[in-house]
Amino acid sequence: MTSVNIEFFGYFAAILTTAAFLPQLIKTLKTKKAEDVSLITLIMFIFGVCSWIIYGYKISSSPILIANIITFILNLFILISKIYYSKNIR
Amino acid sequence: MTSVNIEFFGYFAAILTTAAFLPQLIKTLKTKKAEDVSLITLIMFIFGVCSWIIYGYKISSSPILIANIITFILNLFILISKIYYSKNIR
Repeated sequence: MTSVNIEFFGYFAAILTTAAFLPQLIKTLKTKKAEDVSLITLIMFIFGVCSWIIYGYKISSSPILIANIITFILNLFILISKIYYSKNIR
Repeated sequence: MTSVNIEFFGYFAAILTTAAFLPQLIKTLKTKKAEDVSLITLIMFIFGVCSWIIYGYKISSSPILIANIITFILNLFILISKIYYSKNIR
């Protein structure tokens, strides 16, 4: 496998694991609930993604930095939506 | 920041974004439903994680390889649980 092909898998992976959270956000906004989505998972994941951002910045890796900033924004919106809709139910 | 501190952020990030899916799996198994968890998100994320595994293998990166194998297993179980419980409702 050439290095171009290897890099392709890296970028393909980064795009998929980043864009994957968009359908979750759309679903949450449409159904106006995310009761089944674990709050602990969201919080742990967001802290993890923040650490990836620091790591990406420190090692000067643009793909890690960009992918994780987008993942952070998407998951933060999912978390805010979840909390907002759960409070509106009460 | 020393390189040891930088590596710490990398490992801390990998552990958090991997372990984060354990509470989701536990929640799904406890509540016996994952209706609000997006199926498209799960499928895209699993394919993305598979690409990370191939990438980690090709560049011989043990942290990427190990973290993504665990993430893959956890998310596969979440996906199976979601499908299983949604079929049991019908």
